[in-house]
Parts: sequence; C-alpha cells; structure tokens
Amino acid sequence: MISSRDNARIKWLFKLQSKKYRDQSNSFLVYGEHSLEEAKKNGFTLEIYTSNPNKEGLLISEELMRELSLTETPSDVLAICKKKEYPTLSNKILMLDDVQDPGNLGTLIRSAVGFGFSTIIASHQTVDFYHERTIRATQGNIFYASLIKAPLIERIEQLKKLGYKVYATSSYGSLKLKEIIPSDKLVLVLGNEGQGIKQEILDLADYKVMIETSHIESLNVGVAGSIIMYEWQV
Amino acid sequence: MISSRDNARIKWLFKLQSKKYRDQSNSFLVYGEHSLEEAKKNGFTLEIYTSNPNKEGLLISEELMRELSLTETPSDVLAICKKKEYPTLSNKILMLDDVQDPGNLGTLIRSAVGFGFSTIIASHQTVDFYHERTIRATQGNIFYASLIKAPLIERIEQLKKLGYKVYATSSYGSLKLKEIIPSDKLVLVLGNEGQGIKQEILDLADYKVMIETSHIESLNVGVAGSIIMYEWQV
Repeated sequence: MISSRDNARIKWLFKLQSKKYRDQSNSFLVYGEHSLEEAKKNGFTLEIYTSNPNKEGLLISEELMRELSLTETPSDVLAICKKKEYPTLSNKILMLDDVQDPGNLGTLIRSAVGFGFSTIIASHQTVDFYHERTIRATQGNIFYASLIKAPLIERIEQLKKLGYKVYATSSYGSLKLKEIIPSDKLVLVLGNEGQGIKQEILDLADYKVMIETSHIESLNVGVAGSIIMYEWQV
Repeated sequence: MISSRDNARIKWLFKLQSKKYRDQSNSFLVYGEHSLEEAKKNGFTLEIYTSNPNKEGLLISEELMRELSLTETPSDVLAICKKKEYPTLSNKILMLDDVQDPGNLGTLIRSAVGFGFSTIIASHQTVDFYHERTIRATQGNIFYASLIKAPLIERIEQLKKLGYKVYATSSYGSLKLKEIIPSDKLVLVLGNEGQGIKQEILDLADYKVMIETSHIESLNVGVAGSIIMYEWQV
C-alpha cells in the first residue's frame, strides 16, 4: 500500500490536478465508481488507484485518497484516464466560444450527449474539458462526447464547406427558437457567460437565435444551450 | 470609515453569511451593483456598505470588503437586504423537493422568473434561497421571485383545492414533455439531485413528466426544470 506523498506515482496524481500536466500527458483524473464504469464501457485506458483493498487497482492509503479528492465526500477509487478522440463528427455539433465556468461546461456536455450533439468544439480560451468540476457535472457522460479544442473561426469555415449551417445564440437574435426548423447538419454556437459570442464569430453565423423569455435579458448559458439542443435533438 | 473587524456592524455582516442569522433576522446579503439595482427597483429595503468613497453607503475599508466578499473578484458594494414576501401566487408555480446545490437553485430561480413561474415553493431541506452562490446564480432575478419555504405535502393539498394540477418530473414518467398540453394553473415539482422526488410527493402528482433524451438517464435538475418551464412558459 502506498501511503507517502513522496511516491512518484502519487506526485504525478497531484500534478494531474492542473491543466498543464493534463495537456502534456494527454490524460486526466477520474473520480468515483460511476465515472470509472462509464470510462471502461467506452474503451478509455485507465490506471486505477483505490483505498479499498477489495477493489481493483493499486492500493493507496485512505489519507492519500482524501488528500487527492477535491470534494467533501471522497470516493474510494480514482484513475488516470487517457484522452481519446472519436474520429467522426456528429451531424449536430455544439461549439463553445470561451465558456468560463467548469460547472456550466459540464452541464452542457451532459445535455449535449443527452440530445445527440456528441461532437463538442471549444475555443482554446474555454475552460478545460477535463477540469475536475467539469467532469463531475457531466455525471459520467463525458466519455460519450467527442471533445475538440480548436480555433473557432477556422473550424466554422471548414464546417460550412461540409454543409453545416451555423446558428449563434444572441439576445438580439432575429429568429425565435420556437419558429426555427433546424438544418440536418448544424453547429450551435454558445458564448462566454459575461460577453456572449465574439463579434467576428457572430458575423460568420448563418442564423442568430434567441430564446423568448418574459422579462430577463438572458438565461444561464448551460440552460440556454440545453433548451436549444432539446428543441433540435437528434 | 470602518476598518475594524470588531466593529459591531461588520461582525453582523459576517454573521449574515450563515443561514442561521439570515433566518433569525429575516435578512440577507447582496453583493455588487447589478443586484443592488434590481433590489431597489423591486422595493427591497437595503442597508448599503461600500469601499468606494464616491458611492452611496456606509464606507468600509477595501480590506474588509475583500474579507466579506466570497468571490475572487470582490465588488465594491454590498448590502443587508430585508426579505420580502409577494402576497399572490403565480398561476405557474415551481416546487422544489430538497434541491441541494446552491448553483442549481439559483439557475432555477433565474429561469423561473424568465418563464413566468414567479412563485417558488421549496421544502425546508432545500438549500437556502439566500445562499450567496444561489443569489449570484440568479443574476439579479431573485428580486422578482416570490420565495416560500413550506412543507410540500400540505401545500400540494392546498394548491389542488385552488385548482392547480401537479406535474412531477420522473425518469419513469408516463408523459413525454412534447406531448403535454399544460393546465392553466399548475405546479411543476422537481426533486433532489441524487434521489429525485420523494415517493410520498410523487404519489400526490396528477401527472408524471419525462424529458426524452437519446441515452442518458437524467439531465441536471436546473436544466430539466428550465426546459419544462420553457415549454410551458406564461
């Protein structure tokens, strides 16, 4: 059983809590039984650590498990998981321009998987897909999504050539959600929590969509995106 | 200018960060210009504190303001705000059975106001309406909602006598959201993030609603509730 923080594997686990090392190693941490199961089911490569001698994985002390955990109620398993790319694009794509909150990102991934928008393309300034709070908010659905970071303008231009129509959300949108018949191949673009979508990306959109509400200017980005994906679900 | 943590008013501000004192005094803390404006617009009574000598309010030091702030980027105003009850019930009511996460609660309040579900009734085990993270997630919309804590079973029985129909969300629901024509007067019940709605409350529902998704069991409760309120908006 490993019980020292100085152990090289344990040091590496702590390092993987930061984006820098996740990017370098193309891997990330997964906590809890449910997420581990979903990862296995989808063929992700795992290196499992546990504080429970009856479970599969390298045994580490409960104290270390607690320290490695980022929640108040630590689970007894975690794993290093290799990132994996799915090669095909879904016909409905979710695109995120600088979404900042890990919880919002996780909620969006969860809803996107639920409504068949399984390819998600995010700007480099969007919070890390593999942030612990993001993964937690996906409730295991992250392993069903194809997650891509890319410069959005370039990607939009490529996708248009492939026949995708681009729908941007905007409180000044001209089309009301209830009145839209969505294209078969489409990209839904959502923006930053404070600033919305950048003007140069709005300019590339084929359509600007708004969700009608009684009197508030805007909905939470996770909610707005989920409502539109619900309406347009595959 | 107040700069000591031992000042009685400052001590009281710190106390109001806990639910106990908010309950006792029937008041809560509000941070930032936008929330203050919305509170004023809706006639809430405020006692304002600021670290900016050019702003309205009792002047306190920047250091105290930082300490009182619960976010990384503190604003320069905060206020003690008296709770206020709106006397009438909206025709569409949102009811929450033990929602736990302050962010989810705030998102739901924001969406409820947006879609005309302005009366929100929550069980006593639901997280505090006036939790700092809840208020933040409402983005100023909390001042438009009528927020009630009550025993749900009693309330459901009263509301049924007033002609309200009760719709409970359930992944085993028999009615698909897209196929429902909602009643004019209705109560939408959402449950706890992990457990869903308690059986004794489910038993009182007139209808059980599900949102169809491609393959996941459930959506985030803030998203699920928002999608239904969007469909049934006033």
